[in-house]
Amino acid sequence: MEQYHAQLDGVFQALADPTRRAVLGRLGQGPASISELARPFGMALPSFMKHIHLLEESGWIRTHKEGRVRTCAIETRAFVTVQAWLSEQRALWEGRTDRLEHFVIQTKDQPR
Amino acid sequence: MEQYHAQLDGVFQALADPTRRAVLGRLGQGPASISELARPFGMALPSFMKHIHLLEESGWIRTHKEGRVRTCAIETRAFVTVQAWLSEQRALWEGRTDRLEHFVIQTKDQPR
Repeated sequence: MEQYHAQLDGVFQALADPTRRAVLGRLGQGPASISELARPFGMALPSFMKHIHLLEESGWIRTHKEGRVRTCAIETRAFVTVQAWLSEQRALWEGRTDRLEHFVIQTKDQPR
Repeated sequence: MEQYHAQLDGVFQALADPTRRAVLGRLGQGPASISELARPFGMALPSFMKHIHLLEESGWIRTHKEGRVRTCAIETRAFVTVQAWLSEQRALWEGRTDRLEHFVIQTKDQPR
C-alpha cells in the first residue's frame, strides 16, 4: 500500500509540469531522441534531463541508449495507474448518486 | 493557453499527495466537515488546512462555512479536466496505433 501511494505520488507529480506534459504529448506520436525532444523548449540540457528522469522514474516513459543517442518512448503503465485511480473515484461518486436516487424514488413512493 | 496549463499544473499537483487523495476518496462518499475530514490523519490543523486550500484552489473541492463549521464537498470540474487531458493523450497513441496497423496491413498485402 505504501508502495502504491508512492507510485501514485510520482505519477501525478510528473504531470504537474507543462514541459513534462508536452514531452508526453510529443512521445504519444512516436519515440524521439533526447535532443529532438529538448529542441522546442530552449532549456539547458541538465534542466531538461531532470524532467526526463522524473518521467522515467514515475513510469511514464522508458529510455534506451544506442551509441551516443538516447531514445525515449511512451509507457502505458503510468497511464493505466491514473485511469484506475480515476475510475475508483468515479465509482465512489456514482455509488453515492445511485444511493441518492434510490432514496429519492423510495421517498416518492411513500404515501404522504 | 497559459491559464489552462496553470490549471492542469494545480489539478495534478493536488493529486500528488496521499492525504489529499484520501480526502477526495472520503468526499466521494458525501460532504464532510473539516474536523471530520481531519480526524483520521493525526495532523496539526494548520497543516491539514494547507491540503484543503490546495484542493479548493485547484478545483477538486468546494467549501462552505455555516456558523463555526466549514463543510467540504467534491467538485467534478477538476475530474473533467483530468479526464479530458487523458483522453487527448489516448487519442494521440491510438491514432499512432491505427497508422501502424494500416502500415502493417499494407505491407502484408504487397507481393514479395
